[in-house]
Amino acid sequence: MTSLPQIGPSRPGESGTAHPAVDRAAIEAAAARILPHIRRTPVLDLPAPALGTSCDVALKLEQLQVSGSFKARGAFNALLQSGATSVIAASGGNHGAAVAHAAAALGIRAEIHVPAISAPSKVARIREAGAVVMQDGATYAEAFAASERRRAETGATSVHAYDQPEVLAGQGTVAREFEADSPGLTHILVAVGGGGLIGGMAAWLARGPAQLVAVEPEGCPTFHTALRAGSPVDAPVGGLAADSLGARRVGALMFETTRGVVRESVLVPDEAIREAQRRLWSAARLVAEPGGATALAALLCGAWVPPAGARVGVLVCGGNCDPGSVAG
Amino acid sequence: MTSLPQIGPSRPGESGTAHPAVDRAAIEAAAARILPHIRRTPVLDLPAPALGTSCDVALKLEQLQVSGSFKARGAFNALLQSGATSVIAASGGNHGAAVAHAAAALGIRAEIHVPAISAPSKVARIREAGAVVMQDGATYAEAFAASERRRAETGATSVHAYDQPEVLAGQGTVAREFEADSPGLTHILVAVGGGGLIGGMAAWLARGPAQLVAVEPEGCPTFHTALRAGSPVDAPVGGLAADSLGARRVGALMFETTRGVVRESVLVPDEAIREAQRRLWSAARLVAEPGGATALAALLCGAWVPPAGARVGVLVCGGNCDPGSVAG
Repeated sequence: MTSLPQIGPSRPGESGTAHPAVDRAAIEAAAARILPHIRRTPVLDLPAPALGTSCDVALKLEQLQVSGSFKARGAFNALLQSGATSVIAASGGNHGAAVAHAAAALGIRAEIHVPAISAPSKVARIREAGAVVMQDGATYAEAFAASERRRAETGATSVHAYDQPEVLAGQGTVAREFEADSPGLTHILVAVGGGGLIGGMAAWLARGPAQLVAVEPEGCPTFHTALRAGSPVDAPVGGLAADSLGARRVGALMFETTRGVVRESVLVPDEAIREAQRRLWSAARLVAEPGGATALAALLCGAWVPPAGARVGVLVCGGNCDPGSVAG
Repeated sequence: MTSLPQIGPSRPGESGTAHPAVDRAAIEAAAARILPHIRRTPVLDLPAPALGTSCDVALKLEQLQVSGSFKARGAFNALLQSGATSVIAASGGNHGAAVAHAAAALGIRAEIHVPAISAPSKVARIREAGAVVMQDGATYAEAFAASERRRAETGATSVHAYDQPEVLAGQGTVAREFEADSPGLTHILVAVGGGGLIGGMAAWLARGPAQLVAVEPEGCPTFHTALRAGSPVDAPVGGLAADSLGARRVGALMFETTRGVVRESVLVPDEAIREAQRRLWSAARLVAEPGGATALAALLCGAWVPPAGARVGVLVCGGNCDPGSVAG
């Protein structure tokens, strides 16, 4: 198992050097900064019988976000502060689509390095947003390495998929909205891949009141593995949601912001993820990609059981899949 | 062209006999009555560039409603007042699914008469809700006639798909919510089939402030034809959205409640409906059936042009289709 290439000593959060704080103030500033560019995604309240959960749920429909996932928040927040005229990123999935979209909206040239294994539909979406697509490696790690070489050659700005303070602050705005629009939540279930989303949300909810519950597929348990090891380490990458949650290891920054804040981390089997996709469609005409349905899966399969009196929020974080795949 | 069978002299709204008023008070009462059973569907605000419209739009996502369309509102409102232990309805589509769902939730036996042309997926959905399905006619008119015979034989309650005061009052609750959740709208675009939805909404908005704009496919122009004739008359039934909007003629009740209230009625071609479905998916990961995308189509194709300063709401009224059909 090869590790993700390190990003280099100048990258904050991995070298112990100072980096911008990811805290409520940074998230407030991010929210104001990205306001003209992103959507306040709505919340759908569903009683327990609707999806067959053991409690009522408030679903935040972040798959309706610009670019089809929460990733647009971090991408805009990073690019708007960068002063960049060109940007490079590595991702054949949601991050690539978000950076391509944000760059197009801001008049910035984008070059997205995608591994050969990326779904053609996602690559097409990145290209449609106007980005230059470079397909130059078999795996994400190779595409990332190529993107780093190009960054060094060209002097372009890069936006990391999850381990960059501006990205975490952008993703943290999801928690700020959810808290405002669904006051009184005691728990929020969130899927974890590289951890930029839960890392930003943990920064917002560091003093509560809602508790964050991390949910990962059994096939790519990056956060679960890191918690056991006591630091971010490599984990397997596989299963149904690997295209969006298969980061191999969580970021260093999220490991800081979630420390002592995210106390529950659960794993779900692929069958529960598929069932969550099916129920979102059959009961509420919602389309979620596997990674987007992963948080709900924890409630469906009992991987996480709400305590008595819990008021539970579930983040549906992405919808970039073949819509026909959810009905099966 | 055969007309829909008349419902009989005891049916209010067609014979000139007194019937319960459909007004704000009836809609307030309906809202309180159906509250435990239906969803307050969320609104998604989108700037003009998102869908390529000529103005910003507020989309009310009524396709996320129980049973996949607004029809659940009227079905619950009628059944909750009926005292029925068994109900009969004719519809191979959204009304059938809504009555089946509402009956199951309320412990009422449901018998749904569907024409042979109904989509197997919709019939399956009605059956899954626990209703007895009777496939006993080639067309809706024949299924309706059969349902009326069975009603006479059995003494069961029937719920009309659109021409019944309780049904209009239930559908009117959509306007009440939209007004509360998106204050300041000047116009709301609504698709019309039999007219129960716009009829109920017109009762709520009789004194404004928002103006209703009726949108129909060129292939089934029931309201447009009725307005030209000065009364409900038969219209052609065809095209992409016929399965949900192909009522042949609007109801008598809706013709009363919309008089002097709905001043604009526009037609859209099927290509605009298909394009609206595609854009809802590509830009916002929303799935709308053809009838559910018809109101938006009027903005996309210019059949309706917002006046300067308009603040426009669009009702996405249903999502009961093959989800894979929206991506093409």
